[in-house]
Amino acid sequence: MGITQPLHRMAQQDPGRTALVEGAITVTYGEFYERTAHAAGALREIGAGDGARVAVLSLNSVRYLEVLAGTIWAGGVVNPVNIRWSPQEIAYSLDDSQTEILFVDDVFAAMVPKLRELGEHPLTVVHFGAGPTPGDMLGYDDLLAAAAPVPDAGRTGSDLAGIFYTGGTTGFPKGVMLSHTNLLTSALGGLVATGSLREGEDACAVYAAPMFHIAGFGTWLMTTMMGLRSVVLPFFEPRAVLEAVQEQRATELFLVPTMIQMVLDHPDFEKYDTSSLRFLTYGASPISDALLQRTLAALPGTQLCQAYGQTELSPLATLLMPEDHAHPERLRSAGRPLPHTHVRIVGPDDNELPRGGVGEIVACGDNMMLGYWNRPEESAAALRGGYMHTGDLGFMDDDGFVTVVDRLKDMIVTGAENVYSAEVENAVGAHPGVATCAVIGVPDEQWGERVHAIVVPHQGVELTAQQIRDHAHTLIAGYKCPRSVEFVTELPLTAAGKVAKNILRERVRDAADTTPVPDADADADADADADADAQSDAHAAPKEGSTP
Amino acid sequence: MGITQPLHRMAQQDPGRTALVEGAITVTYGEFYERTAHAAGALREIGAGDGARVAVLSLNSVRYLEVLAGTIWAGGVVNPVNIRWSPQEIAYSLDDSQTEILFVDDVFAAMVPKLRELGEHPLTVVHFGAGPTPGDMLGYDDLLAAAAPVPDAGRTGSDLAGIFYTGGTTGFPKGVMLSHTNLLTSALGGLVATGSLREGEDACAVYAAPMFHIAGFGTWLMTTMMGLRSVVLPFFEPRAVLEAVQEQRATELFLVPTMIQMVLDHPDFEKYDTSSLRFLTYGASPISDALLQRTLAALPGTQLCQAYGQTELSPLATLLMPEDHAHPERLRSAGRPLPHTHVRIVGPDDNELPRGGVGEIVACGDNMMLGYWNRPEESAAALRGGYMHTGDLGFMDDDGFVTVVDRLKDMIVTGAENVYSAEVENAVGAHPGVATCAVIGVPDEQWGERVHAIVVPHQGVELTAQQIRDHAHTLIAGYKCPRSVEFVTELPLTAAGKVAKNILRERVRDAADTTPVPDADADADADADADADAQSDAHAAPKEGSTP
Repeated sequence: MGITQPLHRMAQQDPGRTALVEGAITVTYGEFYERTAHAAGALREIGAGDGARVAVLSLNSVRYLEVLAGTIWAGGVVNPVNIRWSPQEIAYSLDDSQTEILFVDDVFAAMVPKLRELGEHPLTVVHFGAGPTPGDMLGYDDLLAAAAPVPDAGRTGSDLAGIFYTGGTTGFPKGVMLSHTNLLTSALGGLVATGSLREGEDACAVYAAPMFHIAGFGTWLMTTMMGLRSVVLPFFEPRAVLEAVQEQRATELFLVPTMIQMVLDHPDFEKYDTSSLRFLTYGASPISDALLQRTLAALPGTQLCQAYGQTELSPLATLLMPEDHAHPERLRSAGRPLPHTHVRIVGPDDNELPRGGVGEIVACGDNMMLGYWNRPEESAAALRGGYMHTGDLGFMDDDGFVTVVDRLKDMIVTGAENVYSAEVENAVGAHPGVATCAVIGVPDEQWGERVHAIVVPHQGVELTAQQIRDHAHTLIAGYKCPRSVEFVTELPLTAAGKVAKNILRERVRDAADTTPVPDADADADADADADADAQSDAHAAPKEGSTP
Repeated sequence: MGITQPLHRMAQQDPGRTALVEGAITVTYGEFYERTAHAAGALREIGAGDGARVAVLSLNSVRYLEVLAGTIWAGGVVNPVNIRWSPQEIAYSLDDSQTEILFVDDVFAAMVPKLRELGEHPLTVVHFGAGPTPGDMLGYDDLLAAAAPVPDAGRTGSDLAGIFYTGGTTGFPKGVMLSHTNLLTSALGGLVATGSLREGEDACAVYAAPMFHIAGFGTWLMTTMMGLRSVVLPFFEPRAVLEAVQEQRATELFLVPTMIQMVLDHPDFEKYDTSSLRFLTYGASPISDALLQRTLAALPGTQLCQAYGQTELSPLATLLMPEDHAHPERLRSAGRPLPHTHVRIVGPDDNELPRGGVGEIVACGDNMMLGYWNRPEESAAALRGGYMHTGDLGFMDDDGFVTVVDRLKDMIVTGAENVYSAEVENAVGAHPGVATCAVIGVPDEQWGERVHAIVVPHQGVELTAQQIRDHAHTLIAGYKCPRSVEFVTELPLTAAGKVAKNILRERVRDAADTTPVPDADADADADADADADAQSDAHAAPKEGSTP
């Protein structure tokens, strides 16, 4: 077997060891193994298995992991759903992947009617929340009661393990197909570099990153391989993280810098005992020197490690190791390639550039995705020459450290979420008063970057920023909508006739007229509280860029 | 790319770091990278690449590794040849794998005419020794001079990387097909467990195990992934090991217990400075408590680790970690499964046995071979149910430690070499005077076990032990020939009509009439000096067994 193999191993080697803690619930490796086999039995009863896709739309929970592991065990393919997407986006991804089974918790059960209305394919929805099961759904407990455990289907190697959707450049998400070998290779490679930092029977990790994200899944694999005890938090919330660290004497934590800042900023930070923390991994962006110094002072016994990668790399590509953090000149870099992968910086002709030259970051290895679901041309383009083309721009120094200097030009990272500008442009441009528009990221103290739209209205039409934002929000998630809007009469174009975003970015930086729209509707999504916004794309997002 | 990927990474990350030391020769990672690309160019000129098999029959050398890496780089498949086999066995393996290109060094050039005579397929032979190139061979230096470096062919994942022949149960060797993912997975898994023991820029390994063996190849992969400096010894010789450790301040070493004993026994052991050694891995058999205590006293700063596996597992399955050596009751065990694999003990029905029950050791994971070359039925049988059936018998205790109590009943481990009794029986049975025979291993102070034949002569025929041995030696390698022979009138049979070897073993243990044949012809093989005999099958051999 593949991804379930570490679970078999731990259940065999140390069944009584605690695997997962969720509030008052404690689950041993032996129990989680039994629960997974049972979940797989229930899943097979409703048609999962043999490559069938099973989606999960839920906050983090032990049951979430149980259904993911159970799906693989049953022979199926997991499709963890981004909880911050709009129903339109989710329905698209379910249809695109031909997913017919969807698990929801209490929070997301309310979205199901809309998903059914929008989706083309019929959905079998299983409710696995604590509350009552809605009438048009199956109850997970009922399914378990009627099912028996089944043997592991033994999917492995290049078999498809999961489809992980990422924000699409064409306005719709793309399904990244990852095999068992892909995910196991990244996990093993990550452990070769960091294993010695997380050894020991008392080692305990806190899952604060959302499980739909590849960083969540990858962390689960690594902690299972090492037999760690893990605390499952339903979502990121600074006090909950502090409580978990104190109560469970947690030794390791994965956060993005924004989250680290929020934890340190918490008014009660000093009241909690965080002395057990040994190892803090952060991703999505480099850490500022100021935040690093603050973190080292606040968590003196903790080593820091930066991970860089993307969903398409399952996800790990480079690590900035604890010892590298002692060198301030290294802090803007994403570290060096892990043993399981080879990373190069290439020009448009795919030839490697001399050291220091800025080009696209490409990587190869068994961690490289199988491709994008149902997108053979985009897959071939992304994987051309045997390397995954990350879409990130960066350079490598003489010591092999990779620095990401800019991302795929059109992509914006806001609150650690990837937002593809083309998608926002499609939404904004769909407003009947808009002639054309461009969307870029502009520096923002709170969000790292915020989504900024430059709009050319149709002649004679008067528009407000709020109108643009409200309209966009009918089509895309709140965090993708422009937080600031400016109106112009024309857009600068490149020689090739494309919008010259570099010029737009320079203009915005020089101007002061980009006051954000008040965030009045930020809570309109079931999920879009500010904390949750900061959770995702932990590993996948390229660095917070600054052109060199 | 696959197996060449760690080389690309090291050449990029630290090209000036020393990769290999062979006598006065020092090769950096950057140089080895260039040499490999150049070797690949030369190989492609003579038809290697695109899956073509390239065999190497040679003592260890930098050039050996260069040709292995170059073959993969060129797109080919390596076939490292067991240097202690008879020409018949080697010719069989070359024909079986349809290998048309063979590299030989000065030592083995003399065997080429015999191989050409015995083989069915024409051979392109490349001489890469230091001496003059024989007339019927190509000179490696000439090939290099005429060729240019080529880009890496990029073979990867489930592509076939190598065919590693192991002693065959039917009298001929079987080709174990290993993919890039197979080999990389075992290396990554091994490093997760041992990486922290071998880190650091000054880390230096000594290759004393023969490179034709999977342990040699696996060690090369792991040391390349970690960027170690490695000393290449042409073959195992205690003084050479001591000199290498002292001169290069070597930090790690892989040996089999017989070799450890020989190193400690060396009269000049005390004269050498071995204080740099930090990590000593041993395989092929457990270590005796006496030898362990002696080793710990002689090498006080060195941690010991036992590796267990087999070629079919690329090769790692379990490790007995340094800390486990502090528990005398653990010393007979092979340790616990590595993170990349799942190991079970099963009965004849392939169901897992309760803890403590003796059954066949089976293992799964991405390290599991693709199959045996051209043997679909044996492959399917060995890999049935998604697990590699090791043919080793063992049990697992409550803590998950695996102890190998016996091997595939017919297999003998002598001087750390696997000898399949069926093969020896075929050779002995081919003598016109032999009616039937059985071959078993009997305990032997020098060899761990020695090959012992029980022969039923045809009625009225008088045979001597020496006649049996001489005859066998015309067909199989010296180390496989019976070192002791007894003559009987009939063999005990099981209910199923098979020879009851258990009964034979018990008889031999109770008897004293198994005086070994004098070892007069032990040097008849080009390679069969006593030291060399102790070199191979380091990882692949099952434990020195004692029924529990």
